[in-house]
Amino acid sequence: MIKTVEWTDEGVRMIDQRILPMEEKYLMLRSYEEVADAIKKMVVRGAPAIGVSAAMGLALGAKQSVGTAVADLEYDFDHMCDVMGKTRPTAVNLFWAIERMRDAFRRAKAETASVEEVKERLVAEAQAIFTDDIKANRNLGRFGGELIPDGSTVLTHCNAGALATAGDYGTALGVIRGARDAGKRIAVIADETRPFLQGSRLTAWELAKDEIPVTLITDNMAGHVMKQGKVDAVVVGADRIAANGDTANKIGTYMVAVLAKQHDIPFYVAAPISTLDLTLSTGEEIPIEERDPREVTHMRDYQLAPDGIEVQNFAFDVTPNELIAAIITDKGVARQPYTESLRRMVEG
Amino acid sequence: MIKTVEWTDEGVRMIDQRILPMEEKYLMLRSYEEVADAIKKMVVRGAPAIGVSAAMGLALGAKQSVGTAVADLEYDFDHMCDVMGKTRPTAVNLFWAIERMRDAFRRAKAETASVEEVKERLVAEAQAIFTDDIKANRNLGRFGGELIPDGSTVLTHCNAGALATAGDYGTALGVIRGARDAGKRIAVIADETRPFLQGSRLTAWELAKDEIPVTLITDNMAGHVMKQGKVDAVVVGADRIAANGDTANKIGTYMVAVLAKQHDIPFYVAAPISTLDLTLSTGEEIPIEERDPREVTHMRDYQLAPDGIEVQNFAFDVTPNELIAAIITDKGVARQPYTESLRRMVEG
Repeated sequence: MIKTVEWTDEGVRMIDQRILPMEEKYLMLRSYEEVADAIKKMVVRGAPAIGVSAAMGLALGAKQSVGTAVADLEYDFDHMCDVMGKTRPTAVNLFWAIERMRDAFRRAKAETASVEEVKERLVAEAQAIFTDDIKANRNLGRFGGELIPDGSTVLTHCNAGALATAGDYGTALGVIRGARDAGKRIAVIADETRPFLQGSRLTAWELAKDEIPVTLITDNMAGHVMKQGKVDAVVVGADRIAANGDTANKIGTYMVAVLAKQHDIPFYVAAPISTLDLTLSTGEEIPIEERDPREVTHMRDYQLAPDGIEVQNFAFDVTPNELIAAIITDKGVARQPYTESLRRMVEG
Repeated sequence: MIKTVEWTDEGVRMIDQRILPMEEKYLMLRSYEEVADAIKKMVVRGAPAIGVSAAMGLALGAKQSVGTAVADLEYDFDHMCDVMGKTRPTAVNLFWAIERMRDAFRRAKAETASVEEVKERLVAEAQAIFTDDIKANRNLGRFGGELIPDGSTVLTHCNAGALATAGDYGTALGVIRGARDAGKRIAVIADETRPFLQGSRLTAWELAKDEIPVTLITDNMAGHVMKQGKVDAVVVGADRIAANGDTANKIGTYMVAVLAKQHDIPFYVAAPISTLDLTLSTGEEIPIEERDPREVTHMRDYQLAPDGIEVQNFAFDVTPNELIAAIITDKGVARQPYTESLRRMVEG
C-alpha cells in the first residue's frame, strides 16, 4: 500500500511527490510550519491528502505547544490554523479538515481542563481524519466501480489516486481500483498534466506499481484518442464541488470534460463528501490558485521559454455541472440536478 | 528577420530549433543526408519550412553528384528524393517540394544535356521555392490580417511562425503580423505545445523578438482562458489539408478547435496552397506520424515518467472541417463548403 502521509511519534512522514517517480524519498516533518510549507510547495498535493496532512500538522503543532493552560494552547492552535489555512486556496478539504480539528478542540475544551488530554484528542482526531479518508475512498471506489463496464479504458487527468489521499485507493483511481477489485479488466489512459506532471510522474507510477495497464499521453492528445474511440469513460478527482455540482479540479479538467461531451463519453467526478462546499451556490465563487510562472517556464533548472515573457499558471479550472454525468461520493452516486442530490448526500 | 533556412555556397544553413530559445545556434548542413536527418530530428520543423529545406537538400545533393551524364545525375537524384520523402509522413509540403524539384529536373532534362545546367536549374528551383514561400506568407498574412479585429487576443497552438516557414512572416503568425502591419493592436496567447514545446520555445521567442505581446500557457489552460473570455480568435497552421478542408496540424489542434466551438470563438487555419492535398477527399486518409515515446517521458536527460509504461506520442491530429471558420491561404480566404472553395483556390 502506498503511504502518502503518516502520523509517527517523531512527526508527520510524507512521500516527497515532487521527485517521484525517479526517487522514492520520505520526509519527516517535525513541526506544523514544516507541514504547512510541504503543502504549499506540493511535497503533498491532492485535496484529500492536503486535508489529512493539515490535520496531522495541527495535531503535531498542538502536541509541541508549550502552553500550560488550555487557553494558551488554544491561542497557539488558532494561530496554527490560520497559517495552515493560507497554504493553498482552492481545495476545500483543507478548510474542512481545519474546521474538524477546531471542532475537536472545542469539544475537548468543554470536557476537560487538561492540556495533555486536549492534545491527545487532537492527535486522535487527526488519525480519525486519516482513517475516515481511507474508508471513504474504499466506499467511493465500490460505488464508482459499478459505473465502469468490464473491459473499459478510462481516461484520467492529474493524479486522484492513493497519492492524492491518505493512501490506499484514492478517488478517481479508487473508482478504477473498485472496478478492478470487482473483477473487471480496466485499462487507463493518463494525461501527463502539465506543468507539475502529476499524470506522468504520479498516476503512471501508482498504476504501474498496482499492475493496472496505463498508457501515458500529453494533455493535448486527449481529444485525438477520444476521436479514435479509445476512451470509454473519464474519471477525475475534485478540489472543491459547489452546491450545484460545478467542480474545481486540476487545470485541464474542464478541457477534458468539453472533449468528453463532444464524443459522448461519460465524464465522472469522484470525491469524498469532504470535497463538497455547499456554502457556494456555483463554481464561479471558487477561488482559483495561480502559481509561480517558473513551474511553466522551467523543468527543474532547464529553461523552456525565453526570459521576460508573460506567463499564466492557473492551477485549477471549473467544470460546469452540465458536463458531469455523475458525482461519485462515499455516500453514493449523485446525478443531476446536483443541488438536490448533493444536499441529500450531506444530510443523509 | 528570422532566417530559418538559407542556401549558401557551403551548404544549407539552419537555425537549430531543438535548442531555441536558450541557444541561437546555426548548423551548416553539407550533404542531402544531413538535411534529411535534420528534418527527421526536428532541427527544422513546420510544414512549409520542411518543404523549403527538402528542396534545398535535393539541390545540394544534386550539386554534389559526381555523375558525368544527366542520366547518372537522374539516378542519384531519384534516390535522394526517396530518402527525403521518408523523413516525415504528415506534412504534405515535403512531398509537394520534392515533386516540384522532380518537375524542374524533368523540364531541365528535356531542354539540356548539360549536367551543370541541370544542377544550376535545381539550385534555382530550390531558391524559388524559398522565395515563393516568403511571398505566399506575406499574401496570406494580408488576407488573414483583415479577419482579425483591432484589439484582439489571438490564441495559437504550436509554432506556425517564421520558424515554421522559409522565414519572415510565417503562416498563423503571418496572420498576426499581417494584422499588426495593418495598424492593429494584437496580443497573442501561446499554448506551450507538448511534447516538443514549439509554443514556449519558438512562438514565444519569435513574438518577443518582434515585440508582439505574448502570454504563455500550458496546453491544458486553453479551455480555462477561453471560458474567461480572454480569447477573440484562434489561428493555427497546417501540415496537410484534405479536399474537404479537414486539417492535420500539430497534436492538440483538434482539442483547441473543439474548445473554440464550445465558446463560439472563430477558429482559423492559415497555410499556403502548397499545404493542400486535394488527392485526399477527407482527413481520415492523412497519415499521422507517431514519434519516439522518449519525447514524452524525458526532458533532455531528466526523466518525467516511470520506466516500462506504455506511451503514445502522436505528432499530429486532424481537425474536421466543420470546426474551421475559414482557411486562410495565399490566394485568399476559403470558406465552407471547402470542397468547392479550396478547388477554386488551386485552379485560380
